[in-house]
Amino acid sequence: MTHWDKQSLSQVERERLLALIASRQPEHGLPRAFYHDDLVYQADLETVWRQGWLFAGHSCQIPNPGDYFLYDLDGDSVIIVRGDEGRVYAHHNVCRHRGTLICLEPTGNVKRFVCPYHQWSYGRDGKLLTWRAMPPDLDKSSLGLHPVHVQEVEGLIFISLAEHPLDFDDAYQVIASVVKPQGFTRAKIALIADYDVRANWKLVWENNRECYHCNVNHPQYIRANFDHYNSDDTTEYIARRLEAVTARSEAKWAASGLAVTHKHTGMTEFPDVENNIWYSANRTPLVEDYVSESMDGQQVAPLMGDYTDPDVGTVRVRMLPNFWNHSSCDHGVTVRLTPAGKYLTRLRMIWVVDEKAQEGVDYTLDKLLPFWQLTGEQDWALCENAQHGVDSRAYVPGPLSPYKEYNLDRWIRWYLRWLSDGISDR
Amino acid sequence: MTHWDKQSLSQVERERLLALIASRQPEHGLPRAFYHDDLVYQADLETVWRQGWLFAGHSCQIPNPGDYFLYDLDGDSVIIVRGDEGRVYAHHNVCRHRGTLICLEPTGNVKRFVCPYHQWSYGRDGKLLTWRAMPPDLDKSSLGLHPVHVQEVEGLIFISLAEHPLDFDDAYQVIASVVKPQGFTRAKIALIADYDVRANWKLVWENNRECYHCNVNHPQYIRANFDHYNSDDTTEYIARRLEAVTARSEAKWAASGLAVTHKHTGMTEFPDVENNIWYSANRTPLVEDYVSESMDGQQVAPLMGDYTDPDVGTVRVRMLPNFWNHSSCDHGVTVRLTPAGKYLTRLRMIWVVDEKAQEGVDYTLDKLLPFWQLTGEQDWALCENAQHGVDSRAYVPGPLSPYKEYNLDRWIRWYLRWLSDGISDR
Amino acid sequence: MTHWDKQSLSQVERERLLALIASRQPEHGLPRAFYHDDLVYQADLETVWRQGWLFAGHSCQIPNPGDYFLYDLDGDSVIIVRGDEGRVYAHHNVCRHRGTLICLEPTGNVKRFVCPYHQWSYGRDGKLLTWRAMPPDLDKSSLGLHPVHVQEVEGLIFISLAEHPLDFDDAYQVIASVVKPQGFTRAKIALIADYDVRANWKLVWENNRECYHCNVNHPQYIRANFDHYNSDDTTEYIARRLEAVTARSEAKWAASGLAVTHKHTGMTEFPDVENNIWYSANRTPLVEDYVSESMDGQQVAPLMGDYTDPDVGTVRVRMLPNFWNHSSCDHGVTVRLTPAGKYLTRLRMIWVVDEKAQEGVDYTLDKLLPFWQLTGEQDWALCENAQHGVDSRAYVPGPLSPYKEYNLDRWIRWYLRWLSDGISDR
Repeated sequence: MTHWDKQSLSQVERERLLALIASRQPEHGLPRAFYHDDLVYQADLETVWRQGWLFAGHSCQIPNPGDYFLYDLDGDSVIIVRGDEGRVYAHHNVCRHRGTLICLEPTGNVKRFVCPYHQWSYGRDGKLLTWRAMPPDLDKSSLGLHPVHVQEVEGLIFISLAEHPLDFDDAYQVIASVVKPQGFTRAKIALIADYDVRANWKLVWENNRECYHCNVNHPQYIRANFDHYNSDDTTEYIARRLEAVTARSEAKWAASGLAVTHKHTGMTEFPDVENNIWYSANRTPLVEDYVSESMDGQQVAPLMGDYTDPDVGTVRVRMLPNFWNHSSCDHGVTVRLTPAGKYLTRLRMIWVVDEKAQEGVDYTLDKLLPFWQLTGEQDWALCENAQHGVDSRAYVPGPLSPYKEYNLDRWIRWYLRWLSDGISDR
Repeated sequence: MTHWDKQSLSQVERERLLALIASRQPEHGLPRAFYHDDLVYQADLETVWRQGWLFAGHSCQIPNPGDYFLYDLDGDSVIIVRGDEGRVYAHHNVCRHRGTLICLEPTGNVKRFVCPYHQWSYGRDGKLLTWRAMPPDLDKSSLGLHPVHVQEVEGLIFISLAEHPLDFDDAYQVIASVVKPQGFTRAKIALIADYDVRANWKLVWENNRECYHCNVNHPQYIRANFDHYNSDDTTEYIARRLEAVTARSEAKWAASGLAVTHKHTGMTEFPDVENNIWYSANRTPLVEDYVSESMDGQQVAPLMGDYTDPDVGTVRVRMLPNFWNHSSCDHGVTVRLTPAGKYLTRLRMIWVVDEKAQEGVDYTLDKLLPFWQLTGEQDWALCENAQHGVDSRAYVPGPLSPYKEYNLDRWIRWYLRWLSDGISDR
Repeated sequence: MTHWDKQSLSQVERERLLALIASRQPEHGLPRAFYHDDLVYQADLETVWRQGWLFAGHSCQIPNPGDYFLYDLDGDSVIIVRGDEGRVYAHHNVCRHRGTLICLEPTGNVKRFVCPYHQWSYGRDGKLLTWRAMPPDLDKSSLGLHPVHVQEVEGLIFISLAEHPLDFDDAYQVIASVVKPQGFTRAKIALIADYDVRANWKLVWENNRECYHCNVNHPQYIRANFDHYNSDDTTEYIARRLEAVTARSEAKWAASGLAVTHKHTGMTEFPDVENNIWYSANRTPLVEDYVSESMDGQQVAPLMGDYTDPDVGTVRVRMLPNFWNHSSCDHGVTVRLTPAGKYLTRLRMIWVVDEKAQEGVDYTLDKLLPFWQLTGEQDWALCENAQHGVDSRAYVPGPLSPYKEYNLDRWIRWYLRWLSDGISDR
């Protein structure tokens, strides 16, 4: 149980936010203030980021007891550590004595956590073990590291800073069932790349939730995927191709016990605020002759997980507010978002391959990286230009395309609901 | 017609500003808060910068249809473009769809404007031409680029972000009549130099509006000009010299059809808030044997415009809040101010010469630049020191010199009037 | 008499501060807001930094008439200058005309102060001497440089920005009596090192006011000193050693006329808010065989001041809110704190030696510096980690060690008292 002070909204502030929320015109973008107002940014942190489940990292980043990594959000530093018995713990990286950071390195292995300032020490489970120079009658048991909620799902680690986090059961089922054969529990990190994107975090999601921009901006992505076709541009020829690969995949995958395919043109509908759906996982065919999201569609690393055949399409997992993953038969690429100011989003991209794959022998980075590195960097640049645009007093939200931006509209409605619920709760 | 949201002042804020305005002691500088208060900076932007006419650039920066350059102010990015029929348009550089920047490069030539995000396209006149994936029944006509008011005056381009800009007719007449023979319409850019000056924009104008600091700080400027002499230091000898060059100039210039000379010692009186004069243009003699504001007073480039004789004195044009130009027979130097925070002013200096002049053949930068480059940089350093000084809690405005700072006093009165009118209007 | 505008607290702000002050739990650290709240930072500046006496520098930095150095705090630039008759003056570095900085270089020698903007000139004593172009009937006498209070104590210069500074008499007596034999009046600067420490200034003091962290973090310091032993870890063996060196020192020093020794284990108790003690000076033995706070305890420069024998222990002087000094027989090390934002403290370390000592002949920096350079840099890193920790929403103040953090508790009580008194006074 943590006991830190919460910021509270004044009545004037709450009314200002509610008026802003009400000012959004249906099927249009968000009004300008959502990208600029300090109060909105604070409300985003409180109602979305400190309430939702956040992807922290891959289980394979901390395979052994005592392995840890840090994840920082909005001033909070969180230690994600594997405990003695193998389960994952998350603790606030803050000594209970004078508040100093305990772990200074972003990753490492510890037997116990020893604060470098005055050497109070804590177990991997966060319990206060020793303190020098303190009176014997003081109670140690209430002074363990402040805990953070944590969930490990088939090799993916999620945390929540909320006091009472959202129920995770359904998210667990949905993600585990699709992700299990991918074998993230038997994976290793090939590369971590961090980006500072000078754009509000919402612009990054808005970019993610539509493929209207793909045809011109993502030459790599559109060669591998069907989902950039939408109801307005799915020709008979494309429809027949999609039907054919879907039929082929369904037959083959059912035999392998893989989950049902997303079969429609266009992106899967997500999120779904009416049904409280803030997570998603599915498997979709790639285009004919592509078995991996690589530059030429060929396999670029050994098969992962349970796969025995490279033709498994692509797995897509998403969780609001900070995670998505695209995985092929041979590798997966994870994106983690972290707001670092109203105009700055820290993005981490993680490439994972099978744990037995050796760099230089079984795969090379020059083949593994470019597809998603290029696609990602194309998007980050678009997001920064979008931020510059909405900086202008002349920006007014325009109409969204009903064929290509339905998920953007869904995303905005999800966001406004969480924001609205979050400020009403107080 | 643009429809963006305006920030409005609360009653408390308006009263605070009015009290500040009232606190200024006659014939003294501005109180400290005018250089520090965030509210004052916001009010400056609203009441001065978003109401007045702003110099954007020279016509010769965009000679051909489709040529454009960008001008950024306070988050707004404005495209200044030459249209098909040769007239100049100014548009907000903000897509009407999702608000992204349309032009990313600071200058260029376009057939039409195509948003790089989702490829909505607009004509040079700003009309929305094409959009992919939008329902056929949506009305394109109301979704052109937001227009910005623009005026082209004999080779100088001014814009206004105001919904209802100030009447420009008299400014047009005053400037056009003096500037026409200078031939800015047949000029070319020799050099653009950008400076980030760490001082409030008002300190830059205060520096510009007095030559009390010239004798010690501007060794180049005072060698070429008479106007640093004032009623307290115009000796009989100087008065006779000034009289002689004035008589000579009047005779000669009248014959050439050039405008009447400013004949007094000291700087021309400007601005004149009582008569609503926020623009000014005149022609003044240089000292004997100087025909150009160059290091040795000799001609450093071919004659410009209508001039057939180098002895044409110097033309001075000014417009509040962001423009001045000093031109000799052979070149002109323009300064454009842009606030970029309460402690930062972006200054652009532009050197122009005749359009047929060839660098290396007809002129060299090492002769062309130093006079105003040195004088400018001397001023920017003074402004930064002034900002450091008014940062101190110990700063209190001192008495202004009645002989040398009358224009500074006029400037302050103009500023306070615009500020006062601007906040009362709301 | 200076007349600048003071910021005043609203009733809501005052109540917020008082509630914060009241929220501190006895014998615990400060609540999180004290390190983050903008209002607290502003209140710190007003109630502590603009009320207390601030160490500016050593007298030996300005030995001759006209020598000056600048000290900047919170936007104010202060000139500390030696006047014609040898006494030290402090003036605001702000011209009474337009407010510009007068001295641009951080150190120098002037005959008179001439403002570089319009050449108003002032005597070393601050009196306005000349101004060009001003009407003869204007009164010069009220337009001298704004004075700053100054005290010179045996080679140490303190200033106060307060209109009515705290009584300095007792501080003067206490410090002068201990410091006099050290001979700072006959010293010279060996090195000045400036550090930007990314931590709130209070965290720097909290670090200074306990030696709980010394055993692990300061291997150099604990080899030379006894004061890191406290009531919980002073063994019989240590007690006997301390008794012996104290007895030896008392006998020897009494003979030399040196002040009485601090004799207890642990740090001297300081500050003492109940008795209004915000300054302190004492002399303490070093460990056996150490005569200097150097890496091996041996002398690293010629004896200073009145000393004829290296065995003089160590002198410690402190003044809240910005000064401490540790001096051995042969050199002294001064630390000056200056807040530069709620998350940034500028630290200056100054090494002084006897004025006749020649670098390379009588001392070398590689012997002189390391002891305190290392100890200082160890502390600055701890302070930055502490700031990161209290940035977390999970930080809550923990219990202080009664054996090792009694002075930290005293410091917090001093700080809260000054803060509380300062905001009630208004």
